[in-house]
Amino acid sequence: MSIDSEILTAMRRAGDAGTSGAELAQKLGVTRAAVWARIEELRALGYEIEASPLHGYRLRNTPDVLHADDLLSRLWRTTKVIGRDIRVFQETTSTNDVAEKLARDDVKEGVVVFAEAQTKGRGRLGRAWLSLQGKGLWFSVLLRPALRPQAATQLTVAAAAAVCRAICSQTGLTASVKWPNDILLGGKKVAGILTELSAELDHIKYVILGIGVNVNLTLTDFPVELRRIGTSIQMEQGRSANRAELAVALIRELDADYARVCDGRFTAVADEWEQCCATLGKSVHVLIGRRTIDGRAESLDEDGALLVRTQHGRLERITGGDVTLAK
Amino acid sequence: MSIDSEILTAMRRAGDAGTSGAELAQKLGVTRAAVWARIEELRALGYEIEASPLHGYRLRNTPDVLHADDLLSRLWRTTKVIGRDIRVFQETTSTNDVAEKLARDDVKEGVVVFAEAQTKGRGRLGRAWLSLQGKGLWFSVLLRPALRPQAATQLTVAAAAAVCRAICSQTGLTASVKWPNDILLGGKKVAGILTELSAELDHIKYVILGIGVNVNLTLTDFPVELRRIGTSIQMEQGRSANRAELAVALIRELDADYARVCDGRFTAVADEWEQCCATLGKSVHVLIGRRTIDGRAESLDEDGALLVRTQHGRLERITGGDVTLAK
Repeated sequence: MSIDSEILTAMRRAGDAGTSGAELAQKLGVTRAAVWARIEELRALGYEIEASPLHGYRLRNTPDVLHADDLLSRLWRTTKVIGRDIRVFQETTSTNDVAEKLARDDVKEGVVVFAEAQTKGRGRLGRAWLSLQGKGLWFSVLLRPALRPQAATQLTVAAAAAVCRAICSQTGLTASVKWPNDILLGGKKVAGILTELSAELDHIKYVILGIGVNVNLTLTDFPVELRRIGTSIQMEQGRSANRAELAVALIRELDADYARVCDGRFTAVADEWEQCCATLGKSVHVLIGRRTIDGRAESLDEDGALLVRTQHGRLERITGGDVTLAK
Repeated sequence: MSIDSEILTAMRRAGDAGTSGAELAQKLGVTRAAVWARIEELRALGYEIEASPLHGYRLRNTPDVLHADDLLSRLWRTTKVIGRDIRVFQETTSTNDVAEKLARDDVKEGVVVFAEAQTKGRGRLGRAWLSLQGKGLWFSVLLRPALRPQAATQLTVAAAAAVCRAICSQTGLTASVKWPNDILLGGKKVAGILTELSAELDHIKYVILGIGVNVNLTLTDFPVELRRIGTSIQMEQGRSANRAELAVALIRELDADYARVCDGRFTAVADEWEQCCATLGKSVHVLIGRRTIDGRAESLDEDGALLVRTQHGRLERITGGDVTLAK
């Protein structure tokens, strides 16, 4: 935990009572001058920190930026695996690329990589993902679960449920999931999950969960062709959302669901997922390469695959492809 | 195709009749002096090239080294995908690492990476693979098949069958396969296959097939603890084998089987595989993590998974783990 994290944590805990430079200096084992220098740095980043002889330092407002030390401070070791290590980039090609590099460098699982902007954000099957500067949460989580490759869908399902819960807890909006990886608000896509894995035949080496959430985009931020199908939290609730708070909620929910998957309690995750699923019970049209399957989405199997009952009564196990609700 | 490849190909085609410097120069569009310089380079590598006024150049003997231009010359565009691009390293950590780097750099599928020695050769589940300088074929093939991740076992099965056929055609020895990835001679391991993949949930991005063949190792090359379970072609046939010829046979067989997998003719591959399988029809003991399954190995399913009938009559689908023949 860095000094910035400690200072932010102490100020948040103190609230209106404030905390003095002397207290901070003693707690952190540094000089008051060093505390002062860090406070000035935080102010330069946009943190509004009030200083008074009576109350000491009080945190009045935080800027809408992603700051690793601040995110760590807000999480304050409340998660088990995910978010104990956080890295924020101003701009990168794709946070999945960065996380993959960390994976190859044997970085521990749970590291979260954010970027304020992605120049080559991607969705499934190499499709582009719009990742405008400061308008959303574009991030990746490195995981090393002891799962077979076919069970990786469990992680996508878990992440989708976690994203829905985090959006709901932060905004009150009810998000739903379109299997396997789209999160919808009002029937339009507000977030997506890209699951990439490196594996041997029977053994996952690592998984990168890439998550993109459209937080504060406005209609005109979307290219014309996406306006009919894309949305953002700001567009749905009529006002902007605090990205750092949402990021922290997302990390907490992801961490909780990851623990459940690793403990073999995927059915509990799947049950919750079914509550927010826009696909189950519906007539669906599935496109896999050039093959199409029409039927009714019945349930998830133990690996997270979608079971679709065709018109001929056959149960098809869908592990990918494009699923659309039939008209 | 490089000039060295062209010169070696022309000399091989001419055989005892030989080919003159003038003919070579014209064919390659270079000067006779340039041809002479390349011949000298080949000689420096250990190629015995006879030069006479009557016959021109005649290739008399080739050294036991792996030389990319020579391998390309021997293959002479007879394969469709695998081995159109060959790279040879004197030493590397693991050829799978090199192939993975090429994959990320968007190199075309089919590239084959050989190393004379690997300092960190690996087998399944991170186990070490002995890769002594010049004693074997340690190589990796980059593939980009349009398969689902769970179908990657098809490639391991295809590669195992291809390795058996190549060993048989080059040595007359009958190799057998222990599912999924071990090749045996006389019941001992002579070769192994490590399949590593990078994927999205429903879509393989690339597969690296790592193949190690113990060609000219002697008993004392093996650490004591491996002497009971490992062997080499030289040990089994009582004399050394030409690695370049075996490499070419391997690449041809791999290319043929890869074409069959890509064309959806995996059943034909599986049928051949069953001919050389040491596992099917046998009582087996399977260890998957901490779980064990005992039963009779019945067949392969369409994805290449092993179907084992337990004592209780249940059919278990095995996609990994350690399979040993029951005593």
